[in-house]
Amino acid sequence: MDDRSIILEPLTAAEFAPWGDVLEAGGGSFPINGGMVDRFNDLARIDLDGGRLGVSVGRGRPYALPLDLTLVERHPLGSQAFIPMSMEPFVVIVAPDEGGVPGRPRAFITAPGQGVNYLRGSWHGVLTPLGRVSDFLIVDRIGEGVNLEEYRYTNPWRVTKKG
Amino acid sequence: MDDRSIILEPLTAAEFAPWGDVLEAGGGSFPINGGMVDRFNDLARIDLDGGRLGVSVGRGRPYALPLDLTLVERHPLGSQAFIPMSMEPFVVIVAPDEGGVPGRPRAFITAPGQGVNYLRGSWHGVLTPLGRVSDFLIVDRIGEGVNLEEYRYTNPWRVTKKG
Repeated sequence: MDDRSIILEPLTAAEFAPWGDVLEAGGGSFPINGGMVDRFNDLARIDLDGGRLGVSVGRGRPYALPLDLTLVERHPLGSQAFIPMSMEPFVVIVAPDEGGVPGRPRAFITAPGQGVNYLRGSWHGVLTPLGRVSDFLIVDRIGEGVNLEEYRYTNPWRVTKKG
Repeated sequence: MDDRSIILEPLTAAEFAPWGDVLEAGGGSFPINGGMVDRFNDLARIDLDGGRLGVSVGRGRPYALPLDLTLVERHPLGSQAFIPMSMEPFVVIVAPDEGGVPGRPRAFITAPGQGVNYLRGSWHGVLTPLGRVSDFLIVDRIGEGVNLEEYRYTNPWRVTKKG
C-alpha cells in the first residue's frame, strides 16, 4: 500500500467517536406516537459558541472513487451535522489534530441511514456524496464570527475502496 | 365527497407556512465546499422555550392509505422538525387551532427530498411514513416541562388520495 493511500472503513460510532457522533437508529430507543415510532434520542453533541443552531439543506455534487484529497476544514465555533436525505452512502473524511494542523486522514463509508455530527474543531473533509447529486440536512451554527478554518495538504491523499 | 374525507395535497412551502417550514433544496442558495455544494441556508424557524435543541432519529412503522385519523398533537414549548433519511414520501397532517382545539385537518404528501419543521404550537399528526419502515431525523427541544398536548377527534377523519 502506497503510504498516501487511505482505505475506506465502515463508519461506526466507536471509530468515529473522537471526531463526532454517528446519527442513526442504533442503541437504545423509546416508543412515541402510540408505539409506531422508535425514538433514538439526543444523538448529537451539539456545541455552539454564541450564535444559534440552524437547519439548512446542502445539495452536493458527487465524487468518484478513488478520490484525491487535499482540502480539509474545521469549525472553531460550533459542531456541524450532515444527514443524508436519501439512502445513498457517502464518504466521511476526518483527521486528527497535530499541534494545530491535521495529521493523516481516515476515511469512512456510511451505511444507509447514517449521518454524522462533527464536533467543534474536528478536522474533516468536504461533503462527499458518491454516484449522484444528493441532498443532505445540515445542522450547524449560524452566527457572527469566523467559523471556518481550511487546510490544504501539500501532497494529496488518495482515498480508495479496499482491495 | 364525504365531509370527513381529507384529500392529500402536494406539500408546498406556501400552503404549509401557517404551520411551519418545508425543509428542501428550494429558494436561494450559495456555494460551499469549493462550489460542489449548494447550501440552502437556515430554513427552519427553530423556536425553543428554555431547553435546548437536540437531534434524534425516529424509526417509523408505515401506514396505509386511506388512513383514519383521530389523534393530533402539538408542542407548546418548541418547534419540531422531521426530515426523511430516505427518498420515500410521507404524509404530513396539520390542523388549525380553533380556540384551543384543532379544527378540520389538512393532509399533505411530500415529494422526495422534503422535510418539515412544525412551529411551536402547531397541531399536527403523528409521523406517518408510507409503504415501509423509514428513518427520520428529528430536530426538536429537549428539556424539562410538559411539551406534549394531544387531542382526539370524536369522529375519525379519513385521509385519502385524490380520486
